[in-house]
Amino acid sequence: MQIMFRYNWLVREEWYRWCEDVPEEELLRIRTGGVGGILHTLFHIIDVEWSWIRSLQGKSDFQEGFDSYNSLEKVRNLDAAFRLEVQPFVHSWDVGMETRPFYDPQPDGKMAVDAWGEVMRHIIAHEIHHIGQLSVWAREVGKKPVSANVIGKDLIRPKLLS
Amino acid sequence: MQIMFRYNWLVREEWYRWCEDVPEEELLRIRTGGVGGILHTLFHIIDVEWSWIRSLQGKSDFQEGFDSYNSLEKVRNLDAAFRLEVQPFVHSWDVGMETRPFYDPQPDGKMAVDAWGEVMRHIIAHEIHHIGQLSVWAREVGKKPVSANVIGKDLIRPKLLS
Repeated sequence: MQIMFRYNWLVREEWYRWCEDVPEEELLRIRTGGVGGILHTLFHIIDVEWSWIRSLQGKSDFQEGFDSYNSLEKVRNLDAAFRLEVQPFVHSWDVGMETRPFYDPQPDGKMAVDAWGEVMRHIIAHEIHHIGQLSVWAREVGKKPVSANVIGKDLIRPKLLS
Repeated sequence: MQIMFRYNWLVREEWYRWCEDVPEEELLRIRTGGVGGILHTLFHIIDVEWSWIRSLQGKSDFQEGFDSYNSLEKVRNLDAAFRLEVQPFVHSWDVGMETRPFYDPQPDGKMAVDAWGEVMRHIIAHEIHHIGQLSVWAREVGKKPVSANVIGKDLIRPKLLS
């Protein structure tokens, strides 16, 4: 589980660096699909990651809108602040937590029950999906997107045969 | 590992159904980003999945181009044919395979060594990333994209507290 969070954090950091060379109006421009913009997407990714991990722990989630975080610096600072809580939770993950129930009241009054392992994979896939959207918008800006490769990031050390 | 392959196969099937209601010219239209089109992306996803899993097994990979598979039916048939080989491999996965080395000769003559666990996660993330691109293009077509939610697909059964 930790491996894919690490992957996402590495790729996210590369996107922040990618954003440094792009005019802010391009980062804020309203676009087709997803949540509708590059910086808004990065904000949405960190919001969703933190909110789910807060919810698993029975804590309140994040209720603020993008309007209060509409610059690269503000998004990075929010990410750094949230990471202080997200990272220890991810690092403490063990397989015994996979099937723990998360009770999620639905708007229709019913109670959905998800496994914690589903929630964690949801957070991971959620980010990768939205990063895919950024890769399309990057080409609209005329700039090569960040690579999404998992391979080549030293995420797992292969055990060499002797 | 199996959970996220299952997720991807479920989402992929939903995209095939999504494509059924879209004129073929929209599915084939050249678009900005990724491999440049909706059906081409689905072809690319199944090509990459199969090719990596063939490579891990020391078998030859897939060398054909999209030109031979440029209809929804042909892509679905190719997927079904590949699945016969991909699925048993995924189902046979166990943690002991995570750090097995995969030797990958590079164009510059060097030898890269990846862990099998990295390759498998690469296949998973590769699909989710490209599906994110489809979700943008879906809006260009004017049609709601398939949900990327991991939650709600019964991928893990929560263990209810007694």
